[in-house]
Amino acid sequence: MNLDAQILLVLRNLGGSAISAADLASQLGVGRSTIAAHIADLRRHGFDIPASPHGGYRLVGTPEYLNADDIVSRLGKPRVVGRDIRVFKETTSTNDVIEKLARDGVAEGVVAFAESQTLGRGRLGRRWFSPAGKGLWFSVLLRPKLTPQQTTQITVSASVALARAVETVTGLSPKIKWPNDLLVNGRKVAGILTELAAEQDVVRHVVVGIGIDVNIEPHRFPPELKQTATSLSIEAGHVIDRAELGARILRELDDVYSRIMRREFEAVAEEWETKCSTVGKLVVVTIGDRRVRGRAEALNSEGALLLRTEHGHLESITGGDVIVEK
Amino acid sequence: MNLDAQILLVLRNLGGSAISAADLASQLGVGRSTIAAHIADLRRHGFDIPASPHGGYRLVGTPEYLNADDIVSRLGKPRVVGRDIRVFKETTSTNDVIEKLARDGVAEGVVAFAESQTLGRGRLGRRWFSPAGKGLWFSVLLRPKLTPQQTTQITVSASVALARAVETVTGLSPKIKWPNDLLVNGRKVAGILTELAAEQDVVRHVVVGIGIDVNIEPHRFPPELKQTATSLSIEAGHVIDRAELGARILRELDDVYSRIMRREFEAVAEEWETKCSTVGKLVVVTIGDRRVRGRAEALNSEGALLLRTEHGHLESITGGDVIVEK
Repeated sequence: MNLDAQILLVLRNLGGSAISAADLASQLGVGRSTIAAHIADLRRHGFDIPASPHGGYRLVGTPEYLNADDIVSRLGKPRVVGRDIRVFKETTSTNDVIEKLARDGVAEGVVAFAESQTLGRGRLGRRWFSPAGKGLWFSVLLRPKLTPQQTTQITVSASVALARAVETVTGLSPKIKWPNDLLVNGRKVAGILTELAAEQDVVRHVVVGIGIDVNIEPHRFPPELKQTATSLSIEAGHVIDRAELGARILRELDDVYSRIMRREFEAVAEEWETKCSTVGKLVVVTIGDRRVRGRAEALNSEGALLLRTEHGHLESITGGDVIVEK
Repeated sequence: MNLDAQILLVLRNLGGSAISAADLASQLGVGRSTIAAHIADLRRHGFDIPASPHGGYRLVGTPEYLNADDIVSRLGKPRVVGRDIRVFKETTSTNDVIEKLARDGVAEGVVAFAESQTLGRGRLGRRWFSPAGKGLWFSVLLRPKLTPQQTTQITVSASVALARAVETVTGLSPKIKWPNDLLVNGRKVAGILTELAAEQDVVRHVVVGIGIDVNIEPHRFPPELKQTATSLSIEAGHVIDRAELGARILRELDDVYSRIMRREFEAVAEEWETKCSTVGKLVVVTIGDRRVRGRAEALNSEGALLLRTEHGHLESITGGDVIVEK
């Protein structure tokens, strides 16, 4: 954690109370002039840190845009996810950024946020609407020891982490639509795009891309999304702190990922089933040219959806498009 | 096919006989001065095309280094593999070149050859020894409609194509060691590295990398390879025409790939079994930390190796390291 993030962490832990420059300097083991210079720098980046002659520094407000040090200071000590945070003003797609870092050999856990994406991607090559400053668009690099089939565990776990964080930060009750959509009041607020590079049956790396409609106003949605999509701010009735939500998601992702790596996916899968709106429903799954209809019964140990077909067979579905009939 | 490749095709089809500049010009629908300019250009690239005042042009020799037009002129009309040929003097790895083209949206079938690779890769992150001008190091981009599991079909089929081509061009009798090594007289002459990019269960693209020790002299092999590796020229006792072999492999790859796409993998798998030295043998397979011992019995419909374990179970192996015991 660099000095800026350390200063933010100390100020945040004071909960709006003030700390003198001398105390801050001694606590962080640097000189007072260094503290003064860094406080000035943080202010330039949009942090509202007033100083009173007797009381010292307080953290009153954070920047409107995402700031890597700010997110780092909210994370605690990540095991993997969030060990390295990078924020971009604009990218084609944060999955592209992470894919490039993966090929350059960067360690797992690095996260790339972008304020806007010019070529945001959804599943199956679809565009993902990602307007500047209104959402959270970010991707995480993982290098799990899993087979390509088992990476469904990652998508399932990421949707659990996403649901937990949204619930905690907004108070809303999101539901998961298998495998990777998050719905609030029946409308989509977030999605996950898991991409992987493999050598036959050995996964090289996985890129987990997450897109969340955080503070998008109703009039901003393009016509084709108006009926099916919503944002957290619309549903909650107020603006959501993106940095707080982003940091919370990274903490939850770090938690579920460490469970998968400890071979404890079963526990995550159970939580998934309680949050999932798909299980128990009649669904139609379209996989390429093929359509399968049946009742969604459960998840299996690899994260596949178990479907009891019209003919009574139990089929495990690992991809495709799911439409819930009732 | 560009004019250079067309000229080479006409000259090659004459089998060393000559054709007048006038006939060549009218056959290709261009002027005599255009022909003269292109012949001069081909000569500069190392093609030996003497002209006699009365007889006309003959093709006597081709360049020592690989030439894209030369390979194109030997291919006929590819369905997919070889529709676009690119030759590089040096790359990190031809798989990297193709991976980049894949992400840029280039159509399937493009092939990248390199005279040398600075970071040639074998399976499981191993280095691949690829000295300049002595081998064939190339990669092919495919975009098959398969699941990640089914891409084993591609590796198996590529090894069949490779074995066929080596047999035809050199007269040697290569054997396949599952899943992707080609052996001559018990020593390795070639390997295949299949890499894939996927979105969960949907393959985006597959990169098939092939490395063949064609004309490597015995003294060039590094000490750690001397006991296990050989080259086609060592085994055949003479230098092999790399362009001829490369073109032949691409034709065979085009054939097996079109079979896979017509869902005729079974026929390719049968041919594989006749060429495979692994089936019927006692083997030890190491997959990560796990070791499985048993008798290799056959291939299944996805290209996995079916192993009858010591405990009598039939296990399907899709990766890992295979050591043949006897």
